[in-house]
Amino acid sequence: MAPITLPGYGDIEPLSPAAEALVKSEDPEHPANLIPELCREFYKLGWVTGTGGGISMRQGPLVYLAPSGVQKERILPEHMFVLPFAQSSVPKPGSKRDFVRVPSKKGLSESQCTPLFWNAFTQRDAQSCIHTHSQHAVMLTLLLGKGAKSFRISHQEMIKGVRLGGVGKTLAYFNTLEVPIIENTAREEDLTESMAEAMTTYPDAAAILVRRHGVYVWGPTWESAKTQAECLDYLFEIAVKMLLAGMPLEGDN
Amino acid sequence: MAPITLPGYGDIEPLSPAAEALVKSEDPEHPANLIPELCREFYKLGWVTGTGGGISMRQGPLVYLAPSGVQKERILPEHMFVLPFAQSSVPKPGSKRDFVRVPSKKGLSESQCTPLFWNAFTQRDAQSCIHTHSQHAVMLTLLLGKGAKSFRISHQEMIKGVRLGGVGKTLAYFNTLEVPIIENTAREEDLTESMAEAMTTYPDAAAILVRRHGVYVWGPTWESAKTQAECLDYLFEIAVKMLLAGMPLEGDN
Amino acid sequence: MAPITLPGYGDIEPLSPAAEALVKSEDPEHPANLIPELCREFYKLGWVTGTGGGISMRQGPLVYLAPSGVQKERILPEHMFVLPFAQSSVPKPGSKRDFVRVPSKKGLSESQCTPLFWNAFTQRDAQSCIHTHSQHAVMLTLLLGKGAKSFRISHQEMIKGVRLGGVGKTLAYFNTLEVPIIENTAREEDLTESMAEAMTTYPDAAAILVRRHGVYVWGPTWESAKTQAECLDYLFEIAVKMLLAGMPLEGDN
Amino acid sequence: MAPITLPGYGDIEPLSPAAEALVKSEDPEHPANLIPELCREFYKLGWVTGTGGGISMRQGPLVYLAPSGVQKERILPEHMFVLPFAQSSVPKPGSKRDFVRVPSKKGLSESQCTPLFWNAFTQRDAQSCIHTHSQHAVMLTLLLGKGAKSFRISHQEMIKGVRLGGVGKTLAYFNTLEVPIIENTAREEDLTESMAEAMTTYPDAAAILVRRHGVYVWGPTWESAKTQAECLDYLFEIAVKMLLAGMPLEGDN
Repeated sequence: MAPITLPGYGDIEPLSPAAEALVKSEDPEHPANLIPELCREFYKLGWVTGTGGGISMRQGPLVYLAPSGVQKERILPEHMFVLPFAQSSVPKPGSKRDFVRVPSKKGLSESQCTPLFWNAFTQRDAQSCIHTHSQHAVMLTLLLGKGAKSFRISHQEMIKGVRLGGVGKTLAYFNTLEVPIIENTAREEDLTESMAEAMTTYPDAAAILVRRHGVYVWGPTWESAKTQAECLDYLFEIAVKMLLAGMPLEGDN
Repeated sequence: MAPITLPGYGDIEPLSPAAEALVKSEDPEHPANLIPELCREFYKLGWVTGTGGGISMRQGPLVYLAPSGVQKERILPEHMFVLPFAQSSVPKPGSKRDFVRVPSKKGLSESQCTPLFWNAFTQRDAQSCIHTHSQHAVMLTLLLGKGAKSFRISHQEMIKGVRLGGVGKTLAYFNTLEVPIIENTAREEDLTESMAEAMTTYPDAAAILVRRHGVYVWGPTWESAKTQAECLDYLFEIAVKMLLAGMPLEGDN
Repeated sequence: MAPITLPGYGDIEPLSPAAEALVKSEDPEHPANLIPELCREFYKLGWVTGTGGGISMRQGPLVYLAPSGVQKERILPEHMFVLPFAQSSVPKPGSKRDFVRVPSKKGLSESQCTPLFWNAFTQRDAQSCIHTHSQHAVMLTLLLGKGAKSFRISHQEMIKGVRLGGVGKTLAYFNTLEVPIIENTAREEDLTESMAEAMTTYPDAAAILVRRHGVYVWGPTWESAKTQAECLDYLFEIAVKMLLAGMPLEGDN
Repeated sequence: MAPITLPGYGDIEPLSPAAEALVKSEDPEHPANLIPELCREFYKLGWVTGTGGGISMRQGPLVYLAPSGVQKERILPEHMFVLPFAQSSVPKPGSKRDFVRVPSKKGLSESQCTPLFWNAFTQRDAQSCIHTHSQHAVMLTLLLGKGAKSFRISHQEMIKGVRLGGVGKTLAYFNTLEVPIIENTAREEDLTESMAEAMTTYPDAAAILVRRHGVYVWGPTWESAKTQAECLDYLFEIAVKMLLAGMPLEGDN
């Protein structure tokens, strides 16, 4: 593997001490430490079981994310992938991303979610993006049915924890929250284009639901991405209960 | 920021060692240590996800509470807000509270629940008040419907863990528990007046349910507030199950 | 308080070093250490929230149990009550028990479950008895309805984890498990007689369900009491699901 | 007890230092350390309560597994059973297995699941096999009904985490996952033959459901067995929810 040029870090040899240094920190808030900790928490919530789901974080010119197909609740800092973030790498519909990585451990491969995380980074300038396979998200898409283009709910306190477009000001209690739903595809990366389109069509959306699959949520910080993911998951869960009880999700009946 | 006069503590400069001393203690039962610990427990119960909910405690002339809009399961003692408790600061309907605080960390803002906690402190002489966004509380208000003024249940063992007015003697098995329900508002602090009114109208109520939002519970000690919150949440949960199964909540059929 | 005569220990002064010694041990399997640990586990299972429920253990001539009305997940060894076990103290219907205790901490009162635990000790020679307020147990009694004298289920693998009478050989897969249901009373101790009667009427029963309240389970060891409580709670939970789905609990349809 | 010949280890005296050495390791990834750790995790998921369920692992010529009838969340390395793995010990229908063990602690007996684990080892060359009593698995078999020979589901993202036959390549999103269902028997070991037959009849199956009992899942590594068990349990859970909501499990309606 050839050296990789990371903005601000120069050329980094894969598996070199310089590569290792990117994921070694005493700071518990460093992305390489936070991602494993948060993944353990997400596992307890049922968001990332069976290797599914995860979280990505930007730090300056770099992006940190967990590898593909590993137990998310057992990942360690040295398993992290570190990628350069550059606006020039915005995915074009139909194009393959030209990703580079600093492999800190052999035998791991990059998350298939990477281009989807990039959608949030480039279209919303998000600093962190979370993907979950929460059953509440999946059941909601099932109950809303194949034709549903979005999930809409109003008059719930937890709506106030969600931000306009995921990165703007928080919604108000009397606002209607709307999250677009896109169709699932055979390969995760094939969601890239439809997710990008849905984000364009719904500029106020703070998340994208993927039918029979899960959800992507983002925020201007990792804290915001996480708390918005919690608020949205809460709303997905209560919406499922309301639909099963025959209640409308909008209005204040 | 100007110094704040705390009864028994004199003038405290914000961010001074004297301010810090209010939240530094080796005692695990000190409010500044207990609140973060309990919030971590409440998070596991699904009561305070997405920054929602929290707990406040009085200690002598002071009140300790968590800041607004932060991850409740990750707060630390140094994030606590410390406020003077004074009977003169009983909120009057329509008036704005004149709260002061000892900010121990910059960039945090006071909980919007503060005036609601004060309702419990002043009307019931409670020493601790808990606010949760429990889905059981919210689903219960949804199932009872818009017209319901209160939740009533009888013949449940867990009723015996709830106190008359939240601070008196415990209810008996054959008593009917009644918890008033108030309408939610756009801003949390706008609940102050209707919560106060409901507490006056229902002097035996140990809690106030807020429709599509959650619940406020209090007690003569933090232990009592917490165990009553657990008993009530248990009763909300089983009531939701009973309503979905078509069972009456009162009587012993 | 007068000294208490404990068989094998002589006269023990309350709050004396000799009293303290009964609950101080380095052995994690000592009842005074195990009971707090197990209560923390039971809390996570939702069995002992709101101060309800608990576990008692015999060790030679002594019985250890948690005090009444305290947070079960936060009890410590020094909160334990230690009582002499004597066959002569078998409760007679209508009689008040003459219990003694070694108070190791002031201000705590004896568990109201004590005479119910004694039923299991004296009628079944159980060494440990567990009481839970599990919602699965309560919902099951509600779904079975007021007239139901017992819960019966068959053809479930988990039946094989339950013992005849709670202390005999384990049931077989093709056996029908039967747990009697008694009516709840205003005071916990008033259940003593009806529980004793149900245990006599159903000699093979490994537990007693209390309608709108919870369950009592026992075993020849604490391990057996705990694993039977888990198997029974599993069966209560799946029975609730089956009843809600309209399935019969007996037979193999 | 006579010495046991373990391939590569020579004759091992039961309870000898050589026997102890098989289960003592500083390596957290050693089977004798991993099995207790994973069992604690499985307990939290509700997979191994009441002593039920467990996990077995192969390491070279040896097989490690937990003993029978003990609390799975409290087992220790010294409780492990170590057995020689040999292709010659493939169970023949109707024959009794001639198992040997290195008892590292007296009074424990071998898991009744042993011949069922061996099915996965010999028929699929699996390196690890997990057995759970998950309520999702049991409810699914109940909802599918007595006549159902298998569980089939399609169009779920989590299908992609399951492997062909449990050990081959992962399924694709548009594949239909099929898991055979066998009838439960009085004794666990009596499932050996019908499980083996189902594995032959369904060569692509990654697991075997046992009606009113649970599931057996395996993989080419313990990590794969665990993550496939998580994916399958997720699919069992969502299938139960879909069936209760009246939705078809196959197709993309």
